[in-house]
Amino acid sequence: MNATMLYGARDIRFEARPDPTILQPTDAIVRIAATCVCGSDLWPYRGIQTITAPTPMGHEYCGVVEDVGSNLRHVKPGQFVIGSFFASDNVCPVCNHGYQSSCEKKEFVGGAQAPLLRVPLADGTLVQVPLMPSQDTLPDLLALSDVMGTGWFGAVAAQVKPGTTVAVVGDGAVGLLAVLSAAHMGAERILAMSRHPSRQKLARDFGATDIIEERGDDGVARIRDITDGQGADSVIECVGTQESLWQAIHATRVGGHVGYVGVPHGVVIKGEELFYEHVHLHGGPAPVRQYLPQLIELTLNGIIHPGKVFDLTLPLDHVAEGYRAMDERRAIKALLMP
Amino acid sequence: MNATMLYGARDIRFEARPDPTILQPTDAIVRIAATCVCGSDLWPYRGIQTITAPTPMGHEYCGVVEDVGSNLRHVKPGQFVIGSFFASDNVCPVCNHGYQSSCEKKEFVGGAQAPLLRVPLADGTLVQVPLMPSQDTLPDLLALSDVMGTGWFGAVAAQVKPGTTVAVVGDGAVGLLAVLSAAHMGAERILAMSRHPSRQKLARDFGATDIIEERGDDGVARIRDITDGQGADSVIECVGTQESLWQAIHATRVGGHVGYVGVPHGVVIKGEELFYEHVHLHGGPAPVRQYLPQLIELTLNGIIHPGKVFDLTLPLDHVAEGYRAMDERRAIKALLMP
Repeated sequence: MNATMLYGARDIRFEARPDPTILQPTDAIVRIAATCVCGSDLWPYRGIQTITAPTPMGHEYCGVVEDVGSNLRHVKPGQFVIGSFFASDNVCPVCNHGYQSSCEKKEFVGGAQAPLLRVPLADGTLVQVPLMPSQDTLPDLLALSDVMGTGWFGAVAAQVKPGTTVAVVGDGAVGLLAVLSAAHMGAERILAMSRHPSRQKLARDFGATDIIEERGDDGVARIRDITDGQGADSVIECVGTQESLWQAIHATRVGGHVGYVGVPHGVVIKGEELFYEHVHLHGGPAPVRQYLPQLIELTLNGIIHPGKVFDLTLPLDHVAEGYRAMDERRAIKALLMP
Repeated sequence: MNATMLYGARDIRFEARPDPTILQPTDAIVRIAATCVCGSDLWPYRGIQTITAPTPMGHEYCGVVEDVGSNLRHVKPGQFVIGSFFASDNVCPVCNHGYQSSCEKKEFVGGAQAPLLRVPLADGTLVQVPLMPSQDTLPDLLALSDVMGTGWFGAVAAQVKPGTTVAVVGDGAVGLLAVLSAAHMGAERILAMSRHPSRQKLARDFGATDIIEERGDDGVARIRDITDGQGADSVIECVGTQESLWQAIHATRVGGHVGYVGVPHGVVIKGEELFYEHVHLHGGPAPVRQYLPQLIELTLNGIIHPGKVFDLTLPLDHVAEGYRAMDERRAIKALLMP
């Protein structure tokens, strides 16, 4: 098959690679129906996160099971499945606490920007979609593999409750879907921080009541203005920089909750400063697996349409253009069709 | 009057100072019945936290109201009262959320190691004890002014629940009272980290089921051993150093809660490391005011005896010896009687 490899900063190649095979009896091979480029793929693409060897790219996937290892009980060939970027056994104590992305056996699933993907711990990792989806539904289902579940976890971690005020830092796909999640969870006021008209529009479609164009201290001041000087009850941080995390912390009211899902890069929190902020902090890699059954149901029932974040669709062999478009912020998120 | 002043590292003087007077119509003057030295007083005493001028010391107090400003409605001369180290109006939105130690009008109450103390925002700050306490009850009531309420907040922030496993980092008065708080909240297993026999004994008296003598990584390993490799559901951090906070974070199970009440000194949290720990973090200066009515009731009913942390009683004019004894860890906490 041909698959997507990153060789170095801005050097994406779609090139011949061996087809994946069953390596462990708990593996499955999935024929990818749709995949995409993630905001987090841009960290190594931009050279901010260095790679030491050519790396298979992509960790968002849905598709049809093609082959299964001998130890699988639930996953069977022919099923349409969605999985998350961390394979998990879904039975260990950590998974039982709902943190499948820290599963005791967790394994990163890489190489999804390809026609075929090996998924470890497939019985724990893959969730079957109870019908063969139409092409129209594919983007919504694919979004559940990471960005929708990550935005959802951000809202859970920020303790979004009915009637509360929520601010979202970051207008990438995760930030936009955090807006959707907060709206679904009953937030009364949702403040989306964005200065890009197309993203602002989508944020409003997803339920944002206010758009904050200011950044940094000005953005915090604007949120404080709107909330009678108090700050938001919940703030969802979906970027991962020093500035964005402090913006989130400062925009949160005393006693409020910061849910952070942007993968931190070079972020340092000073204990003394955090102490007097009096906020709750929770976050990390989203346990998407936990939310998949619920999110699949909401999607199939037409209650949420997370696939709206895909504003560019390309054949898989044009993957390099997908990276370029996202890097240059011409696209929110690029869908790739094998 | 004579009062306690810190002039520099290890330079405590008990010297003539003007009697405090009503400066604002919301002030009260309290005649101190008992006061004490706090673990946090040791930071400036040791020169780790620098002072720029001679500083009146002490922020833990209970006693009888002697004079009141013209705007007070509830506080009246003759009442026996307890207050916290942060004066608060107890009516602003922040106080209404239960975070009186971040009150919009908060003011630090200093100079309690003296016979008389000016307390700002007295109607919001002071809580009346509904009887004139006996000398025997004084230590228990005094402990509520800071260390008991701080240990309690640590347990609240760490989300201690019935049946859970709780670890406490730090065996000072706050750590020991965090043990007491966790026991009162129904924790099934309480792991107290201490290598001092007298503190271990008190920890057991307060409800600790296990004593962990190891520190740092060894201490974490011991806690993981005891908890089937998972870590504790809740960890209460009562020290405030880089080592103690990381010890707390690493001793917490995935998805568990760290409540931190040790005032951080030189603590730096790396965002990347915290992200993959998947713990909840909450803490800060304890909103002791919120808990005072409940803790006074528990104390007067004989359900809790937080005054056991005082293992040294001195006349107030021997205050310098109280600092020395605590600095050298000869005493857990020194009670001072004017």
